[in-house]
Amino acid sequence: MQIQQITYNDLNQIARARKQRESQDLTDIDEKVQSIVDDIKLNGEPAVLNYIKELDGAEVDSIIVSDEEIQAALETVDPNFIKLLEEAKANIEKYHALQKEKSWYHHEASGVWLGQQVTPIERVGIYVPGGKAVYPSTVLMNVVPAKVAGANEIIVTTPVGADGKVNPLTIAASKLAGATQILKVGGAHGIATLAYGIKHLKPVYKITGPGNAFVARAKKYVFGDVGIDMIAGPSEVCVVADKTANPTLIAADLIAQAEHDEMASAILVTDSHQVATNVKDEVNRQMEERTRKHILQHSLFNQGAIYVVSDLQVGFDLVNELAPEHLELLVRNPFEKLSSVRNAGAIFLGEYSPEPLGDYWAGPNHTLPTNGTAKFSSPLGVYDFMKKSSVIHYDQDALREAANKIERFADEEGLDGHGASIRKRFE
Amino acid sequence: MQIQQITYNDLNQIARARKQRESQDLTDIDEKVQSIVDDIKLNGEPAVLNYIKELDGAEVDSIIVSDEEIQAALETVDPNFIKLLEEAKANIEKYHALQKEKSWYHHEASGVWLGQQVTPIERVGIYVPGGKAVYPSTVLMNVVPAKVAGANEIIVTTPVGADGKVNPLTIAASKLAGATQILKVGGAHGIATLAYGIKHLKPVYKITGPGNAFVARAKKYVFGDVGIDMIAGPSEVCVVADKTANPTLIAADLIAQAEHDEMASAILVTDSHQVATNVKDEVNRQMEERTRKHILQHSLFNQGAIYVVSDLQVGFDLVNELAPEHLELLVRNPFEKLSSVRNAGAIFLGEYSPEPLGDYWAGPNHTLPTNGTAKFSSPLGVYDFMKKSSVIHYDQDALREAANKIERFADEEGLDGHGASIRKRFE
Repeated sequence: MQIQQITYNDLNQIARARKQRESQDLTDIDEKVQSIVDDIKLNGEPAVLNYIKELDGAEVDSIIVSDEEIQAALETVDPNFIKLLEEAKANIEKYHALQKEKSWYHHEASGVWLGQQVTPIERVGIYVPGGKAVYPSTVLMNVVPAKVAGANEIIVTTPVGADGKVNPLTIAASKLAGATQILKVGGAHGIATLAYGIKHLKPVYKITGPGNAFVARAKKYVFGDVGIDMIAGPSEVCVVADKTANPTLIAADLIAQAEHDEMASAILVTDSHQVATNVKDEVNRQMEERTRKHILQHSLFNQGAIYVVSDLQVGFDLVNELAPEHLELLVRNPFEKLSSVRNAGAIFLGEYSPEPLGDYWAGPNHTLPTNGTAKFSSPLGVYDFMKKSSVIHYDQDALREAANKIERFADEEGLDGHGASIRKRFE
Repeated sequence: MQIQQITYNDLNQIARARKQRESQDLTDIDEKVQSIVDDIKLNGEPAVLNYIKELDGAEVDSIIVSDEEIQAALETVDPNFIKLLEEAKANIEKYHALQKEKSWYHHEASGVWLGQQVTPIERVGIYVPGGKAVYPSTVLMNVVPAKVAGANEIIVTTPVGADGKVNPLTIAASKLAGATQILKVGGAHGIATLAYGIKHLKPVYKITGPGNAFVARAKKYVFGDVGIDMIAGPSEVCVVADKTANPTLIAADLIAQAEHDEMASAILVTDSHQVATNVKDEVNRQMEERTRKHILQHSLFNQGAIYVVSDLQVGFDLVNELAPEHLELLVRNPFEKLSSVRNAGAIFLGEYSPEPLGDYWAGPNHTLPTNGTAKFSSPLGVYDFMKKSSVIHYDQDALREAANKIERFADEEGLDGHGASIRKRFE
């Protein structure tokens, strides 16, 4: 088997491919999720403790990680890795500080003052997956933007092990990044605990962070009562390469993305047949070197593809239709091609900007829109942890000038109390 | 009966009041909504036409409002009102232009280029309610920000009457604001048509605009496949008044909000017993003058309240817990009090800035977070019609410097392909 090669001619091909990947029946999951969330909303802490026992196999007295547990965890983590986490945190902080919006005001006309007040979301919850793998980078990428935004309370929740303990690296990363509290609750019960609170733990206003299908559906279910970031799907990379690109590096980058899980998608778009052929060979060669070869066989051969296009501009039409989570531009003068990119989560320019640089290090967020949602959504950012209020001030003359016009609008919409509210100011 | 007066001492009072208002059983609506949306997703235009027949009682050949229909509609609308719409549009445009974010980049260290590219959402759908009332202001408040953002296609959809026609004022406002297409599909079938498209009509990427429970639940159901703005609830005003405030105007403003519908909420927070008493009397007096008195009796007496607080700072704690859609500050030096407001959709400062000024005229958006969601969300704005991509460029030296650190992270997370993608660049 090998990675599929497609001669590209029809955008509808892509639309169909996406639809197939999406159409998973979630009815069973949704029913379970809703019963868990509703139960916790109604019954609070006892219900949460039950689910921890039933689903995580753990008996805990409190769902809050204690100061003693935090101290114990910090002592088990390699100090060299802590230093690395601190350095990564500094990079993330610096980039995200650039995103922080200021309140502003503007005088449009005499007596008219209009503004926009930007304030932090006061209390946020961060979901951090546990289970098979530990992702300290996920902790940093969620907690740091909340901290930069100025959130007062940043509550991390993560699954508890059967031993009643939480992964020490998750604890260390959370504390270092600025979390104010850490909870031992994973899954849909974790999302419900954040959204509706329990005794002595107030509900948060917004929840971010990745998770499995239960977490994702629980987030969608509670959305509206609290804010959520996005519903994340499998990870994706799209590499756009011209004939100047190095097939060895392209193959390595496709593999790096595809190793995440069997549904991960790695796509090459190129105008060079030679590059396409060489990448196919390189992928097969390099796969043999990788420890996660069993995953790569699924993800590369089922979800991967090499599109050969007549020219790069057609390639960018395809990219914008795919709206990939990660986009690498391995082309001559990649900066010049930025204007052709309309839909992508993060864009990596040139040979020395491989995608893993963004996962851990460079500073921009690695929580990115997947599955085509970059057409309408953005990387997680400081803006996800802030909100705006508009501010309006008219003085007497300014309102008098507008009074009749506002009243006419109110008449047109059949709301005579609206007109009266203006009129009574000049009686 | 009269408006309820509460001596305020406990934030939990508010939390409970909110919960009661929220807990409406939506299971029946959700089942209907999901079957409509799934049907249209699967069967396309014939299904849409069926629902138009079944639910709107109309037989139409095409769901697209034709150029002839647009022309005919424009001829029926009062030219004076068109001029007013144009003036309101100009105000909305000017304010929203101030919200438009620029792409930026930043050189953090030698060889490191980090940026954020901001681009419009290319294709958006706007839902405009029909039925009982016509709200041209809603059209402007949704279409203009999309236009300012730079969206290529702005598709308005609105319910069709039994005569197969759409309200001419909605058509006029849509064209004037910059809509590129108008559809005759209301309800959940309207949302499904926008989200999944039909033959010759591509799906949009994001849907905004208010609607009834069917529309709101349909938006929540399609969220994830497309973006949505927010789930809007009943309208609200909170007036904060000190003893300098004029009870006649406060009463008029409470009434203006409460006339929207029976669930609308009008709340006064004051540190003056005298003001509280006078407003109560004024409300009863002014209600008699209003055409929508039958609505006011429900909304003011059931959803309204006057909170008397010991001092204004306590009042602002209450305001921030309520997180009202509209907040009027009828106090001495209202600008100085802005720093006490953390959660509110729009803030109106002083005696000559009544809420209806914001509904129609001043320029800031009137689509605002309701039901406490101002704790985590913002007014509709240009930012809702744009999205961001992060951009990362490292040169060879910069990546070499970071290489070992990135590899260590990858090791820690068990992803050896990530490490290889870095390593191969220096082999």
